Amino acid sequence: MIGVFDSGFGGLTVLDALIQRLPAFDYFYLGDSARAPYGARSPDVIYEFTREAVEFLFDAGCPLVILACNTASARALRTLQQRHLPARRPDHRILGVVRPSAEALAGLPPEAPPGAVARESATGTVAVLGTTGTIASDSYRIELAKLAPGLRLVQQSCPLLVPLVEEGELSGPGTDYFLHKYLDPILDATAPPERILLACTHYPLLVTSIRAVVDDPAIELLDQGEIVASRLARWLARHPEMTTRLTQTGARRYATTDDPQWFAARAAGLLGRAIAAEKVHLHSVD
Amino acid sequence: MIGVFDSGFGGLTVLDALIQRLPAFDYFYLGDSARAPYGARSPDVIYEFTREAVEFLFDAGCPLVILACNTASARALRTLQQRHLPARRPDHRILGVVRPSAEALAGLPPEAPPGAVARESATGTVAVLGTTGTIASDSYRIELAKLAPGLRLVQQSCPLLVPLVEEGELSGPGTDYFLHKYLDPILDATAPPERILLACTHYPLLVTSIRAVVDDPAIELLDQGEIVASRLARWLARHPEMTTRLTQTGARRYATTDDPQWFAARAAGLLGRAIAAEKVHLHSVD
Repeated sequence: MIGVFDSGFGGLTVLDALIQRLPAFDYFYLGDSARAPYGARSPDVIYEFTREAVEFLFDAGCPLVILACNTASARALRTLQQRHLPARRPDHRILGVVRPSAEALAGLPPEAPPGAVARESATGTVAVLGTTGTIASDSYRIELAKLAPGLRLVQQSCPLLVPLVEEGELSGPGTDYFLHKYLDPILDATAPPERILLACTHYPLLVTSIRAVVDDPAIELLDQGEIVASRLARWLARHPEMTTRLTQTGARRYATTDDPQWFAARAAGLLGRAIAAEKVHLHSVD
Repeated sequence: MIGVFDSGFGGLTVLDALIQRLPAFDYFYLGDSARAPYGARSPDVIYEFTREAVEFLFDAGCPLVILACNTASARALRTLQQRHLPARRPDHRILGVVRPSAEALAGLPPEAPPGAVARESATGTVAVLGTTGTIASDSYRIELAKLAPGLRLVQQSCPLLVPLVEEGELSGPGTDYFLHKYLDPILDATAPPERILLACTHYPLLVTSIRAVVDDPAIELLDQGEIVASRLARWLARHPEMTTRLTQTGARRYATTDDPQWFAARAAGLLGRAIAAEKVHLHSVD
């Protein structure tokens, strides 16, 4: 079973892309809705909450966990990989969304080998929209500098977009005001970006309103679902020792730390199909 | 020591009013910033989080805890008082903000005896602005019906006001759009309210923008800080057995479940004075 973790229900957009691309595998989705959103929390708290979530998914039978949440990927993944896994779970793996998304921002195709660096001719400007925590972590700048040092990166934190999506404010003058507030400084610059990454699982739900503000069709809007799915397919092809451990029975499990009915209703609205969710409790990890 | 609990830092506005009115007592403020905001969470989760918080304050030496958070008062107080206290803490007390605020909405003065009912001539319309959880609980309607059955109550959930305050968007076109969205249906009604209760600790920070939308000076805006403080003074005068157990050494403690530096900075901005905050961890209560 592949575990997929997000702070809330937004990561279902990533899960859906994974299921489309890799339908044979079993999936267990966990949304920490009782403590969402993570975007403005401190690094220590994001690390602790994320560690509790991945330990839950490991215990539930997932040797591989995808952090669909950008804030968790940006704030917690490195420490989990470097300290937590070697000490407690040497045979488990956690993958995030920052590295694959940075590859797409750099213009590297999904089939590029790991460690590939964009041609030196990769210049110009790209942009990342994210939560306060994702942007403050500077994770995208660090990853992109390794892949395409000639690219200029503009980062913009958009703290109100998650609450707007959570409250169903997907369009209208209030949402437009904040989209312009966040995007106009990027778009009106002397070097506007060629690509804008929507680096939060909630943002694809705003894509119609974002595209209306980003009205130059030459500017590409990158959605992480397909980016993460295509790179996971590549990763699995190169890691048969993990792939053989992943069950393939058609199982799809959904868990939340808050009310499962509420979660299932939100999920159905997002996925366009009914799901059954279970309530789980996350425990402190020593 | 008097414990004061809120989901985040907004309850400091209530604490400040308590300190002004009752400066002799010691206070311990706890903000569950790592899991704020509570407004849209399910009743079960709000109950569990609130129970963990009051147990923490009890253990820290507070025989009396004030739930400054409207969502916690509306969703958790009754069950805590009726089940948790008798079973585990028969000599402790928890008070909320809904009952005193409903008294003020009913037009009862702070010195009214407990159980007083507004004169039958109390008619007209009053309004409550709150989080989704506070409004969905119907707590204000239930309390007000006991005190002033002739009053008509209009309730309005305002889910984006807390995120707007958290992000410092205290004024401007985006905030005005959502204030109009929430308030216009109330103000444009055939019977606009005489009084509007700001039933969330965050809302007083928006009072200037709210007053600009509520531009009829005859409509009173009720802030809970002074309401809660004056009614607590009355309650303490009638409960000497509790008052004698409350220490009076000038102590002021501040704790948060997230980063204490971040919390202290927000608190300083709100209170106009520097404070030192400590980080605490809340534990599950069996």
